[in-house]
Amino acid sequence: MKKLINAPADYVNEILDGLTSAHPGLVLGGESGRCISRREPALQGRVGIATGGGSGHLPLFTGYVGPGFADACAIGNVFEGPNAQSCLDAIRAAYHGTGVLCLYGNYGGDRMNFDLAIEMAGMDDIACETVLGTDDVASAGADEAAKRRGVAGIVLLYKAAGAAAAEGRDLAAVAALAQKANGATRSIGVALAPCRVPTASAPNFDIGEDEMEFGMGIHGEPGIWRAPIAPADKVADEMVDRLFADLKPGRGDRVMPLVNGLGATPLEELFILWRRVERRLKDAGISHAAPLVGNFVTSMEMAGASLSLMVLDGELEALISAPASCPFWRVG
Amino acid sequence: MKKLINAPADYVNEILDGLTSAHPGLVLGGESGRCISRREPALQGRVGIATGGGSGHLPLFTGYVGPGFADACAIGNVFEGPNAQSCLDAIRAAYHGTGVLCLYGNYGGDRMNFDLAIEMAGMDDIACETVLGTDDVASAGADEAAKRRGVAGIVLLYKAAGAAAAEGRDLAAVAALAQKANGATRSIGVALAPCRVPTASAPNFDIGEDEMEFGMGIHGEPGIWRAPIAPADKVADEMVDRLFADLKPGRGDRVMPLVNGLGATPLEELFILWRRVERRLKDAGISHAAPLVGNFVTSMEMAGASLSLMVLDGELEALISAPASCPFWRVG
Repeated sequence: MKKLINAPADYVNEILDGLTSAHPGLVLGGESGRCISRREPALQGRVGIATGGGSGHLPLFTGYVGPGFADACAIGNVFEGPNAQSCLDAIRAAYHGTGVLCLYGNYGGDRMNFDLAIEMAGMDDIACETVLGTDDVASAGADEAAKRRGVAGIVLLYKAAGAAAAEGRDLAAVAALAQKANGATRSIGVALAPCRVPTASAPNFDIGEDEMEFGMGIHGEPGIWRAPIAPADKVADEMVDRLFADLKPGRGDRVMPLVNGLGATPLEELFILWRRVERRLKDAGISHAAPLVGNFVTSMEMAGASLSLMVLDGELEALISAPASCPFWRVG
Repeated sequence: MKKLINAPADYVNEILDGLTSAHPGLVLGGESGRCISRREPALQGRVGIATGGGSGHLPLFTGYVGPGFADACAIGNVFEGPNAQSCLDAIRAAYHGTGVLCLYGNYGGDRMNFDLAIEMAGMDDIACETVLGTDDVASAGADEAAKRRGVAGIVLLYKAAGAAAAEGRDLAAVAALAQKANGATRSIGVALAPCRVPTASAPNFDIGEDEMEFGMGIHGEPGIWRAPIAPADKVADEMVDRLFADLKPGRGDRVMPLVNGLGATPLEELFILWRRVERRLKDAGISHAAPLVGNFVTSMEMAGASLSLMVLDGELEALISAPASCPFWRVG
């Protein structure tokens, strides 16, 4: 858990300074000083998308601010939800005269502060809707799908909802689309090694030298089973099986795949996983859009990977394929 | 050193399968079966750029094949240079009727096999020139600069030389440009933790729990000093000092910066490093093009980072800024 950092208390601020310096299309501001928004905002009259979450997951959350993605992002400390002022700053920055969709992962602290911020925004006559990412199938059963946590699938929701907003749809329509996209998206992760929050003295979980944990969350939340490390194909197979069991895709269906690295797992291993996922899709008669394979949602130096699948219909595929640009994903 | 892989003997082939499946603009072929080239080749009459190197460094080497970058890449086993047949395959795939620049990092095995392949290509009347990346200032003194190893700076050479080739310059001119770009580029790295070659039972080097090694190469080659981990700003300062000492930039100069992660170091930490590098550039009166901050040249799960600087003139800046596209870097 060695880190190239300065004082742990300065960690988040220094990251945000470096990020906005390297990507001048992003601006840090708000009364909280913890809100990233677009230097060139979307057109007046477009629905805005506000998101937010804890630090330590780059490129998530704030890397997905840009045309065709989110408009603004509230930033919390490492693995902590953003405070209410930061959420309000993001809502205000995302407001272009016609309402804001708050789109973020389903975590208690984030919900509490976004809900409070939405109330405060209401006093400014900013209408908001909320859609929560709930893609992690390991975090609750299919009968309690609304209780599931949000993990890497949120990236696909940004893309779909961002394109819907850019098209000029109204707030209710953008929210309905985001809800539909979330309903079509599932993820499952596997962890091999922990990370350490900079202000903590110990890793966020313990795991044996030869062990993996299947289904673990991006903050180290307990998964489904823990056992000696399995071959990549076996891991990919169980990931696909679990997502298929939940999504129930049929032959002829089409999906958007995301093979995501949690931080310390090499790109090489993600391509090995993808190769097997691709074969499983083919065997099941399921076609796919160009996959994302890389580090899109991380937990600092945590080792492991996740698989997300979004079942596409014509509308979702058009939105996923629409031109869009943010520092870490560009389409068209 | 936990890995999500299958049989170590299948490691490279499975990576290449996954990579070409995820990025269909890349095609795996050649008599060696270890050559990646563009599905849509460059125009006939354009100089081709062939590169190559060992596996385990993704996105390097083969991720930088695409319009405006390299035309073909020879692929070796993990941390081993490509064999001569693979180099010949890359030269042939890069040949569009008017000569090929072989542009790769300065390592003995790579040189031997590329030189042999160039002789074989000569029998096909394919004219070749060679330019070696020698950017690692830690690997030899300034008086022996030609002996230096190539590390992350090669990425900037691909971009500059690829743009020169795309402009339609002839072989001698593209080679001269690549040599000029290499002469303007320096890198220095720091390692915090090793990686393990899949077929090996032990990590590629040992390092204490609280130690870092300044100047270590991307295969674990010994560096300049080893000591307890220093704060990020101190590391960035020494990186900048070492590169300035070698490049000797003056006030008013302009550089292209690349802050590169070696694999397991989070993006967060790279932005913290960049923030300090940016301040140092500013204090020295040196302006900069939009920096690259991310994992561009890795050593699988090795932890650490490197800084590269290319001193720009008008020609190099125009080439670095020209539209180009490969799976892991897109401009324009």
